[in-house]
Amino acid sequence: MSEGPAKKKQKLLTKAVEEKVDWRRIKAEKKEQKKKWKEAKLIRQLEKVNKAKEEEERQQQCQEEQRGKGRLYTVSIALPGSVMDNAQSPELRTYLAGQIARACTVFCVDEVVIFDEQGEDTGTVEGEFKGVGKKGKACVQLARILQYLECPQYLRKVFFPKHPDLQFAGLLNPLDSPHHMRIDDEAEFREGVVMDRPCKAGKGSLVNCGMRKEVKIDKQLQPGLRVTVRMMNQNAESKAYKGVVVAPHIPRTEGGLHWGYSVRLASCLSAVMTECPFKEGYDLTIGTSEKGSDADFTSLPQFRHMLVVFGGLQGLEASVDADPNLEVTDPSVLFDMYLNTCPGQGSRTIRTEEAILISLSLLRQKIATRLSDQAKQ
Amino acid sequence: MSEGPAKKKQKLLTKAVEEKVDWRRIKAEKKEQKKKWKEAKLIRQLEKVNKAKEEEERQQQCQEEQRGKGRLYTVSIALPGSVMDNAQSPELRTYLAGQIARACTVFCVDEVVIFDEQGEDTGTVEGEFKGVGKKGKACVQLARILQYLECPQYLRKVFFPKHPDLQFAGLLNPLDSPHHMRIDDEAEFREGVVMDRPCKAGKGSLVNCGMRKEVKIDKQLQPGLRVTVRMMNQNAESKAYKGVVVAPHIPRTEGGLHWGYSVRLASCLSAVMTECPFKEGYDLTIGTSEKGSDADFTSLPQFRHMLVVFGGLQGLEASVDADPNLEVTDPSVLFDMYLNTCPGQGSRTIRTEEAILISLSLLRQKIATRLSDQAKQ
Repeated sequence: MSEGPAKKKQKLLTKAVEEKVDWRRIKAEKKEQKKKWKEAKLIRQLEKVNKAKEEEERQQQCQEEQRGKGRLYTVSIALPGSVMDNAQSPELRTYLAGQIARACTVFCVDEVVIFDEQGEDTGTVEGEFKGVGKKGKACVQLARILQYLECPQYLRKVFFPKHPDLQFAGLLNPLDSPHHMRIDDEAEFREGVVMDRPCKAGKGSLVNCGMRKEVKIDKQLQPGLRVTVRMMNQNAESKAYKGVVVAPHIPRTEGGLHWGYSVRLASCLSAVMTECPFKEGYDLTIGTSEKGSDADFTSLPQFRHMLVVFGGLQGLEASVDADPNLEVTDPSVLFDMYLNTCPGQGSRTIRTEEAILISLSLLRQKIATRLSDQAKQ
Repeated sequence: MSEGPAKKKQKLLTKAVEEKVDWRRIKAEKKEQKKKWKEAKLIRQLEKVNKAKEEEERQQQCQEEQRGKGRLYTVSIALPGSVMDNAQSPELRTYLAGQIARACTVFCVDEVVIFDEQGEDTGTVEGEFKGVGKKGKACVQLARILQYLECPQYLRKVFFPKHPDLQFAGLLNPLDSPHHMRIDDEAEFREGVVMDRPCKAGKGSLVNCGMRKEVKIDKQLQPGLRVTVRMMNQNAESKAYKGVVVAPHIPRTEGGLHWGYSVRLASCLSAVMTECPFKEGYDLTIGTSEKGSDADFTSLPQFRHMLVVFGGLQGLEASVDADPNLEVTDPSVLFDMYLNTCPGQGSRTIRTEEAILISLSLLRQKIATRLSDQAKQ
C-alpha cells in the first residue's frame, strides 16, 4: 500500500515538530552541561582550597616539629593480654611484661592498649586478683606491671602499694626513661604527686617531685594526683621550689621528650579502636601479621595518631574470632595497613615481645625518613 | 771583553748540537710518552675487563639468588659473653641466652661469635665449669646454650649430655627453625648423626636423622659426626632410607633455607675478625653504637660475608679497651661502618639482646631493598 500526499505532509510536519523539540532539548542539555561544568569548577576550586589548607597544616606541623624539637604525633600499640600465658614460669611471666615495657620505652610509645581475647571481662586494673603465675587475669597483670615500670621510682611507694602482681618486680630491668629522674637531676619537667599538706588557702599545692625540697605549684589540686610540673627558677634559699602544672603531653609536644606511656584496657579488639582517647581517633591503624603485605616496600602516610596492633600466640585471627562485635574473619579489613614486618623470618613463629621490637624498629625508620623527606620539600 | 768570530762560530755549533740533542730528547720523550699511553691504555683495558668480570659475578650472584631461591651471602654477629652477667637470676641468665638464640634464628644469622672482654681466656666450650648463675665463664655458658638450642631436638641426647649449664634449659623458648624437623616431616634436607652401627665394609654409614628409619649414606664416616643429609627417594619397603651427605651450607645456598648457626668463641674483639672462618674474610663489618652515624640514611653495599658487632653493658669502647691487640681507643676505626641503628631512643640504654633484634630488623630491610634494586637493574 502506497502513502497519499496528505499523509506525506503529516509526516513532514511531525518531523519538523520533532526537530523543534530537538532544538529545545539541545538548548536545555547545553544549559544543564554548563551548570554541571560550573559545579565541577566549584568542586575543583573547593578541593584546591582544601588541599592548600591541608598542605599548610602539614607544613605547619613540619615547621613546629623542626623549630621546637617537639613531637606532635603519637604512637600507640595494642596487644592481647594473653601473651602473658605464653611464659613458662611466674618469674618469666613478670619478665615478659618487663620486655614489653622496655620495647615501648626504647621506641617512645605513648599509649599501650591491652585487649582481652579470652573473655576475661577486665575493665579496670582494680579487678580481683588470682595470683601472679596463674593463668587468667593476664590483662590486668600485664597492665599493672606496665604501669609500675612506667612510674618514676620515687613515686612508686605512693602509687603502688605492695601487691602480689608485683612479687617479682625486683627482676625487672629499669626503663631508664627521660622522666625517671635522679634526686639531683636538673630538668625542665618533672613528674610528681600532689601532697596532702595544705598550703594557705588559695596559695596552691605542694608537690613531691622526688627532689630534696617540695615543689610549690600555682594551682590547688587534689592530694594524691599525679601531675607533670614545669620547673621554674630554683631559688636555693627558699623553703620550696616553684613550678607550674602542665598537661602531660607538653614534654613531648614542646620538648620532643618521651614522657612515659599511658596504659588502657580494652574488653575486645574492636574496643581498642572505638575507645580511642584522642578525639580525632587514630588516623593510621596498622595490623601486623606474617600474612600481611611486605612492609619493606611500603611507606607510611602522614599521621597524627598511629596505632600498631599485635596478635598473640594465635595471631590476630584469634583476636578477631574472640571479638563478639566483629563479624569479619579476615583481620586485614580492620586496618589501614596490614603488614608483615619481618619477611623471610627464619623461625616458624615470632613471639609478640619480639614482634614489638622488630616492627617498631622498621616503622621508626619509615617515620624518620618521611619526616626528613617532608623537611626537604 | 768582546767575543771573537771563532768563538761565535763555536757557540753556534754548540747551539746546533744542543738543538740536535734536543730533537733526540724530544724523540725519546715522545717514545716514552707513547709507552706510557700504551701502558695506561692496557691498565684501562684491564680495569674494564676486571669490572666486567665483577659485574658478571655480581649479576650471576643475583641470578643464582633469584633462580635457585638460594642465599649466597652470610650474616655473622658478634657480642661479648659478658652480657650474661647483666641478668638478675640464674633463670634469667639462661633466658637471656635463649633470647639471643631466638633473635639469630628469626633473622637467619649464620654465625654467632662470642668474644671475651673480661680476660676469661676461653678457647673452647669444653672449659672448666663453675656453675650457671655465677659470674664468670659467661662466654662458655652462652656458647653452650646457643649450641644446645640450635641442635635439632632429636640430636640433643647425643650431643648434649646432662650439664649444669643447661640446668634451666626447660625454660627456653624453642627456635622453631626449618632444620628442627618433626619425626614424619618430609624434607629435602635433614640433620643427623652418624651411628656406631657398621654397614658392610665400603657400603657407607647409617645416620640417625630423627625419622622412623635410619638413613643410609654413600660415604663411610666416623660415628658421632653431625652431618647434613640430602634425602633421596624414600622407599617405604626398604629397611633404611637413602641419602647423600652434603656440605652444611647447601640448604642455604641451594634452597635459601636458614639452617641454624655455628658458634665460635674469640679470645678478644680483634680475634673476631682475624679468626674469620671464611677464607675471603668478612667483606662488610658493621659496629653498632649509639655514637655511630644515623643508620636511617645509610644503604648497604654488596657483600658476601657481613659481620655485625654488638657491645656489652659498657658499649664497644669497653671491648676495645679490654683487647690487648688493639691500640686504638675509638671503636669506629675498626669497622667498615659504625652505625646507630636506633636514633632517638626513648631509654638511656638499649640492652644487647634488644639491640640484636632492633639492628637486624633494620639491616634485614636494607639487604632486601638492595637485592630488589639489583634485580631490577
